[in-house]
This record gives sequence, structure tokens and C-alpha cells, in this order.
Amino acid sequence: MSFREDGAAALDWAARYLDRVGDLPVLAQVEPGEIRARLPASPPELGEPFADVLRDLDEILLPGITHWQSPRFFAYFAGSAAEPGILAELLAATLNSVGFIWRTSPASTELEALTLDWTAQLLGLPDGWHGHIEDTASVSTIAALAAAREQTGGRVVVCSDEAHSSVERAARLLGLETRKVPLDDEFRLRADAVDLTDAAAVVATVGTTSTTSVDPVPELADACEAAGVWLHVDAAYAGSAWVCPELRWSQAGVDRADSLVVNAHKWLFTPMDCSLLWTRKPEALRAAFSLVPEYLRTSDEAEHLSDYGPALGRRFRSLKLWAVLRCYGRAGLQARIREAVRLAELFEGWVRGEPGWEVCAPRRFSVVCFRHEGSDEENEAIVERVNRSGELFLSHTRLNDRYVIRLAVGNERTTEEDVRRAWSGILGVAPDLA
Amino acid sequence: MSFREDGAAALDWAARYLDRVGDLPVLAQVEPGEIRARLPASPPELGEPFADVLRDLDEILLPGITHWQSPRFFAYFAGSAAEPGILAELLAATLNSVGFIWRTSPASTELEALTLDWTAQLLGLPDGWHGHIEDTASVSTIAALAAAREQTGGRVVVCSDEAHSSVERAARLLGLETRKVPLDDEFRLRADAVDLTDAAAVVATVGTTSTTSVDPVPELADACEAAGVWLHVDAAYAGSAWVCPELRWSQAGVDRADSLVVNAHKWLFTPMDCSLLWTRKPEALRAAFSLVPEYLRTSDEAEHLSDYGPALGRRFRSLKLWAVLRCYGRAGLQARIREAVRLAELFEGWVRGEPGWEVCAPRRFSVVCFRHEGSDEENEAIVERVNRSGELFLSHTRLNDRYVIRLAVGNERTTEEDVRRAWSGILGVAPDLA
Repeated sequence: MSFREDGAAALDWAARYLDRVGDLPVLAQVEPGEIRARLPASPPELGEPFADVLRDLDEILLPGITHWQSPRFFAYFAGSAAEPGILAELLAATLNSVGFIWRTSPASTELEALTLDWTAQLLGLPDGWHGHIEDTASVSTIAALAAAREQTGGRVVVCSDEAHSSVERAARLLGLETRKVPLDDEFRLRADAVDLTDAAAVVATVGTTSTTSVDPVPELADACEAAGVWLHVDAAYAGSAWVCPELRWSQAGVDRADSLVVNAHKWLFTPMDCSLLWTRKPEALRAAFSLVPEYLRTSDEAEHLSDYGPALGRRFRSLKLWAVLRCYGRAGLQARIREAVRLAELFEGWVRGEPGWEVCAPRRFSVVCFRHEGSDEENEAIVERVNRSGELFLSHTRLNDRYVIRLAVGNERTTEEDVRRAWSGILGVAPDLA
Repeated sequence: MSFREDGAAALDWAARYLDRVGDLPVLAQVEPGEIRARLPASPPELGEPFADVLRDLDEILLPGITHWQSPRFFAYFAGSAAEPGILAELLAATLNSVGFIWRTSPASTELEALTLDWTAQLLGLPDGWHGHIEDTASVSTIAALAAAREQTGGRVVVCSDEAHSSVERAARLLGLETRKVPLDDEFRLRADAVDLTDAAAVVATVGTTSTTSVDPVPELADACEAAGVWLHVDAAYAGSAWVCPELRWSQAGVDRADSLVVNAHKWLFTPMDCSLLWTRKPEALRAAFSLVPEYLRTSDEAEHLSDYGPALGRRFRSLKLWAVLRCYGRAGLQARIREAVRLAELFEGWVRGEPGWEVCAPRRFSVVCFRHEGSDEENEAIVERVNRSGELFLSHTRLNDRYVIRLAVGNERTTEEDVRRAWSGILGVAPDLA
């Protein structure tokens, strides 16, 4: 095998993929088990050429791939793996650094701290917070809640029903109970209904998964401070919006959080996985996680980032974030975030202007929640039909016990034309179902 | 930016890196803070060319990188990111799939199940075990112990002092106590000294981090079965050796484990991160982790791999494992494992034949534990000097309260000449210290 030749073929595949991804069916049009059935049940005895891997990726796997890079991926939180980030992943895999302690990869440890500081500056976060990277917000939340449990001794995690499911999963893992707070009529946690008895932490969400609602962080910060409870802010999606000053209204009170998670792989154009966790109480994270065995003891006084989360082995994730921040700069990030918000606003206007359709929650960022006046089944059928068309990919939620369609803009390749095609696609299937 | 041009430059950098990595100082020769101080304290306002990122990687970051890909990296567990795996990471980042449920990436979900079955076949594991990928053994252990807690209701994790530190970290996270079992004179957990009162799980290690000793899994399986305790086998390093039939003696009893972790990124030539977790009780993992919110509910009956571990978001990690298994085949994997074992055996012979030196633990796989007859300080100075030379990188452990040097072979580029250079390097610094 020649790394240069195989690499050129892989790179060509990647370049062609990015060129044509907009022409592929967004949601994979396959049945469970279909892809696996096309692959050999056993591994080869002798090595095969890398070209065969590329061929099978194209012919067998590709039909089973849901295209997160498609400009008409509007499900969940749409995002992008930007080109500098993709290439940085090639470089990180080439280096194969494992940064469990500083000396095993000083550059990745220090670049991680630096890029987290850079991002904190871009987002307007307070100076001096300690930042590091976890794989996902699920794991960042585990780390934050473990620190909260360590520091407070509390047994309850307080959040709303609109908090991400990973909060309840993390609480269960940590042996903590979850207490749900009622919502106001805009899907925000009601600060006046919070009960902090025996609480370890409150998880406030800035940009909930269903509607991107913003919990009242300043009021929650007051309550947490008074009660000695840890305040964790989950801004996994919306935190990236703070790169734009006009969207920083949603940051009110966040400076008083004990920990904050923002997923760079959600809306900061960085490939999966890159979840950024900041804290103003790094000692609480260290108390929860640090445990240095003899074979990792060194005489240097450097910081070991594995002291701040569950995983000991840490790959060089900061390289892709650094590449994206450098190649886009503040201006480039702002332009992309603003365009996504503009397109969502435009779409929202079309929904509002169309008889029989309604917007079901205030649009705060780049996600629109809407439905047709028909039944839940009808709305579900709309989503299923457009998804089956391959033309676009939408997801849904339930609000006030009704099925609601979500359209999330976030892919950097999404144009006004793509959003128009989405709306025509939706309108196109709706009449059949009325 | 042109993805093709920048990509060609990145690929060229990667190819040149792999060509010259053997000439670079293995352990980064920098002081804490040195790399960071050479980088700008703030991110750019405007985007910069990707070429600048590559230039700074070369000029600023490279001196701060400890070269895990060097053929003379002999510390911890040496491994390799093989070329097909590196290129697969480029492809995975290009696709940027997020497989939290089946439909968001059917191909990655099904390929993950398939590659885990392939690997099970290669390693001679029982048919029908459920396998999935976590980032690190730390997180695999958390998943396994969470399932054990769920299933047994026990509060104690039983292991030896030679178990990996991640076991104690995981137990702490889960609110479980750790009970340490004494060792025999070959650093194996003493099955006759196990106390299973209130136990949730026993963690048996096949290939401990210090000496690669192998705990008596058959006896532990007997005890666990009798007491209804979960048996987790940590074969993060040594499990890969089972691809060779002559090393399967160390697999005795593993077929009776409830869960098993093997890190493909340790000794199966797959880039970080790729920790393989199998279980014969998938329902216990699901009981510990499954929690499906409305916005992820779908009508398909497919399996969702995020039900088996802490993270919801899952990147396309199976692609690199698949690429390595295909391009190397069973024969290629066996040849590489056997060569590493042969080189370690050779090195062991040199140590045994040299007056004043001793081998401090039985060599089971590709790691040699040894020391010079002098003091701990002298041995420590030997390691520090060779590491500072840049010629090789060694790590250490403590056995029977003495400082012991470890040499781990595992990088696929390591040749007999590299091991010879290591031994001369060690002998070269030793006399100065006597």
C-alpha cells in the first residue's frame, strides 16, 4: 500500500462527496439490516487493497448514510464539519497523540487550553474559566454533575422537562435523582417553581432541543448562589450563537454558572466530536476525577486534562477546533451563524403567511417549530413523506401534547434556495393528506 | 480555500510526517507552557489560509508533540495508527455522521455491529456477544460497571491493585466502593483472597498495565457465577493478542465474562479512539442507559447503539476499524502482533544476559519490566536520561515497592534495529550513574 496514492484516492473521494452531497437523498432510504446484509459476515484472511474499502464505501455503505453534510439536512440540530476541521482530523489521526498526561502530548494539552480560551473570547465568556474538550455534551454533563455532587453532597438534579435527555441519563449514572420543574408558556423552566431541597445542581438550558427556548439563567443563578447549589448551563447548541453580539441576550446570567457546555460540533463548524466544557471551579472537577497511578506520575508540574473528566485517553481534538477558528476567524463564524438565523427567520415568515399553518414556539435562533392545522397523524405523515422523498430531512418534537415539526438550519452549505425547496417540499406533500 | 489543494498539502504533510517520524525526538523536549507561549493569545478576526495552520503545526506545535507513531516509542502501551485507519478518519470526518439512533446513520450503526462481530471472530470470542465502540476503556468500564450495578444492586467493585486506575475512577463516578484483592508473586489477583460481600462486579485484568500479568479468570468466573456477581474482563491491551492462537492461553475463562473490553487503538493498529466493548448481557447495558426522548422516537425497530453507553452522540468510529481489518486481514494482524512479541522476547533476553540487570516480572506479551541493580533514583535517572535524549521513550512502574523500567513494543514500524538502539541507549547512560 502506498499512503500517498491511497491518500490521494481518499481525498478525491472526500472532495467529490462534498461536491455532490446536496444531490444525495438526505435521509438514508434503507431498511434496518439492509446494509449489513450486503457485507461479508467474516473478515478477510489476507489484506485487501485500500481501493476496495473506498469502492465498498461508495457502493455499499453510501446508500445507508444519512447525510449530515447535506444543505437540506434540517433535522435535530443541523451542523457542518467545515473543510479545515476535516483536514485537521486527518492530521490528528496521523499524529495519533494520546494526551492522558501533559508529557504524552504537550502540544495537544496546551492547544486545547488555548483554543478553549480563544472560544471563550469569541463567545464573550468571563476571563479565567477553565476549559477542556469532551466527546459529547452527554459526557460533559456527566463531568459537571460529578463535580456538583462532589462539591455539594446533594442528591438531586433540578431541570425542566425540556432539558436534554442526557441530563437524566447522567443523573442516573451518578446515582442522583432528577426533579423536573414546570415550564412557562414559552417552554422555559419556571424559576418561581424551583425546589432546591437536597439539590446538587440545577441544569439550565440555553437553547433547548425541542424549541431552543432559553431558561431564566439570572434567576436560577440567584437561587443557586443562595442555596449553595451548582449551576450547570447547557448551551450545547445555542452557545455558539454568542459569537454574534446581537444574540448575546441569551447569555444573561451565564457568567455566574459553575459550568457551561457548548458543542463546537453542533454549530461551530467543527467535525464530531468536540464538546467544550468550561468551569469556574476546576478544583471540583479535579476532586471528582483525579487519580494518578504510579505509571503516570511525572515530576513536571503541568496540568493533565484527563483530571477533568471520565476518560483517561484523550485524542487531539483541539486541532480541528483550532483549524476552524483560524480559517474562519470571528467574522467568518459570525457570517455563518447570522445566515442560518436569517434563513430560519425567512422560513418562519413563510409558515406564518400560509393559511392552515402555525408556528408553535417562539423562534430564538435557527430552529422553527411549526405544524399544519390537521391531526398529529397528518403532521407525522408530512414528515415521513418528505423524509422518504430524500429531498430533505426533518425531525419532530411534542409540544403541549401535540406533534410538532422542527426545521433546524445550521449547515454552512444551506442556501436560501435550499430553504425554499424545503418549504415547497413540505407544502407539496401536505394537500394529499388533508 | 480549495479543499483539494489544502487537502493535498495536508496529505503531503501526513506522508512526510510518517516518513520522518523515526528521526524526531520521541518525547517532546519542551517545558510546560512553552508551546502555548508561542501561539497568539487571541483568535483572528478574519479567516486565515489553511496553509498557515499547516505551517504552525510544523514550526510551533511539532516540537511539543510526543511521537506515539515513532518506532522507538516504548512507553505505556505502544501502538500504531495504521495508514488505512488514518485515511478512514479523514472519510469519517468528511461524512460527519452522528449515529445517536439507527436512522441518523444506518451504515455506521450496522458497520459498528459488523466490525465488532468480525473482531470477535478474529479473537476467538464466543458467538452472539453484543459489541459496540466507546471512545476509551475508561468509558467502556463505566458502561460495564453501570450495567453491573443495575443488574446486581451490589455496591462494591472488586479488583486488584494492578487493575487500571480507570476502574477506581469508574467506581467512584458510579458511587461504588472499590475493594482491592491481594496479588500473588506474579502480580495476578489472588482468586483465593476474593471477598464478594455486597459486590456488584469483579474486574479481572488480562494484561495489566504495569506488567501485563493475567488474572485467573476461570476461578473468578466460578466465584462470580456462584455469587451472582458481574464479571468484567479488562483486556484493553492484551485482548488484541488473541488474534494469534498461541497467545490464546490468556483467554481462558473469558468466554464466561459478562463484559469484555479490548482497545483497538492499543494493539489493533486503529487510530485513537476505538475501545471495543462486548457483553453477553446487552439488556443490562440497555437498562442502565436507555432513555429515548420524544425527538428521537422513530417507528423503525432498529437497534440504537447509544442505548449501550453514556454518550448520545456517536461518530463513525467503525470505519477506521473496518479499514484496518480489511487492509491487514487476519494474517497481517497476526504477523504484526507476533513481531512485537518476538522483539520484546529478544529484549528480555538481552536484559537477562547483562550483568547487573534483572527482569522484574514474567514477560507475557510485548512488555518487558526490568531494572538495574542500583537504587530507585538511579533507575529513574536512567529513564529520565534516555527520554531526554529523544532517542527513545520509556515509562516506568513500581513493583514490590521498587522503581521498575518498562519497555513496551507495539508500534508496527518498530524493527529489531529500533529495539537494539533502545538497549544500547539504555546501557549507554547507565554507567554514568553507577
